[in-house]
Amino acid sequence: MELKEFIPVWRDLTPAQQEQLASGASKRTVQKGTVIHSGSLDCTGLLLVECGQLRAYILSDEGREITLYRLLDRDICLFSASCIMRSIQFEVMITAEREATLWVIPPEVFKSVMEQSAPLANYTNEVMAGRFSDVMWLMEQIMWKSFDKRLAAFLLEESALEETPVLKITHEAIANHLGTAREVVTRMLRYFQSEGMVKLARGTVEITDAGKLQQMTCCPFHRRWLIR
Amino acid sequence: MELKEFIPVWRDLTPAQQEQLASGASKRTVQKGTVIHSGSLDCTGLLLVECGQLRAYILSDEGREITLYRLLDRDICLFSASCIMRSIQFEVMITAEREATLWVIPPEVFKSVMEQSAPLANYTNEVMAGRFSDVMWLMEQIMWKSFDKRLAAFLLEESALEETPVLKITHEAIANHLGTAREVVTRMLRYFQSEGMVKLARGTVEITDAGKLQQMTCCPFHRRWLIR
Repeated sequence: MELKEFIPVWRDLTPAQQEQLASGASKRTVQKGTVIHSGSLDCTGLLLVECGQLRAYILSDEGREITLYRLLDRDICLFSASCIMRSIQFEVMITAEREATLWVIPPEVFKSVMEQSAPLANYTNEVMAGRFSDVMWLMEQIMWKSFDKRLAAFLLEESALEETPVLKITHEAIANHLGTAREVVTRMLRYFQSEGMVKLARGTVEITDAGKLQQMTCCPFHRRWLIR
Repeated sequence: MELKEFIPVWRDLTPAQQEQLASGASKRTVQKGTVIHSGSLDCTGLLLVECGQLRAYILSDEGREITLYRLLDRDICLFSASCIMRSIQFEVMITAEREATLWVIPPEVFKSVMEQSAPLANYTNEVMAGRFSDVMWLMEQIMWKSFDKRLAAFLLEESALEETPVLKITHEAIANHLGTAREVVTRMLRYFQSEGMVKLARGTVEITDAGKLQQMTCCPFHRRWLIR
């Protein structure tokens, strides 16, 4: 997949700008589990996901985590280039949840073209607005939704991403996605099991009644992905 | 105060672009309590705050609220023009907390100039990144900070905004700022009172020991304003 396929405004760039991006960009493959970006001190550059799955999350001083959003095929990660905007004052971590192939555009290259090109700057605006919407969605979930609904939605989302009802995931990992403690996850999963919605085994959570889980979530199933 | 003083990139606009913004903009005074913007159906336009105080918040289906950020003198409100970006998929409410004088730039006027002008598009990017940082700060507070710390920080912030230790605010209003229930606020304020940090009376909360409240918050006092 070529670089220009990721950038819908490619044709609105001048040949010189296209050349600047193309010659600056490089392709990189990262293994599952790799920490690609770690907060604002680390200005990795703009990431364009050719294939794979990245996870963007925040980390508390005490080491607690919460997933902000996932980046899938064709997604663009802006916050790995947060140094290009001085108003970005927060720290996002990015790791590969699966092996991924990425285009990386160095921050100074992207910034230089964005400063000249209204189409690229406006496109960047749209990308940021999309991530902002993801985070606002998450904030609404945390504020207004009870944990059982969030957990049900998470299990359904994972099952859709992994394309299987048998999720290989620990309670600890679920807790890190949802920003809570492991015990809270374990207690709720046991309740789900008693209601026949899941079946628990060592290291796996099997969804046995997706319809019932679905009913628990008030919103259409993984709306967060659908609005992209 | 003239329009051009709000827009740091004014000089980088062409005379025609300047004229487009200037002739489209209008000045408006809103009374305290006015709902200026109400979700995405309402595309008010870009708001430039000459003086006054606006509050941006989200609202749950059940009518619960949480304050996202305040807009003060010289601040720019982008989400009241959210229709200019299709990727903004969330609903923000904006009300005047004090009488305010605003410049309003109609959304289609701003959009048209932004589409032509790389400097204006990049500036808009910075404004959005700043708001994004405010919201991420809030998310971290909600996720990782206990309610006593958030309440202490809120009281100090209000006192700084109002320039008085005697806050005329109901427990209900505080609950709406912090996204919780009135009872939770009342209980914690009573605890603060028993510790000598505040004095409660009908309709007021008086800060009697700002230093002790300060100690409760882990972070430098109203960091959210300082990073602007």
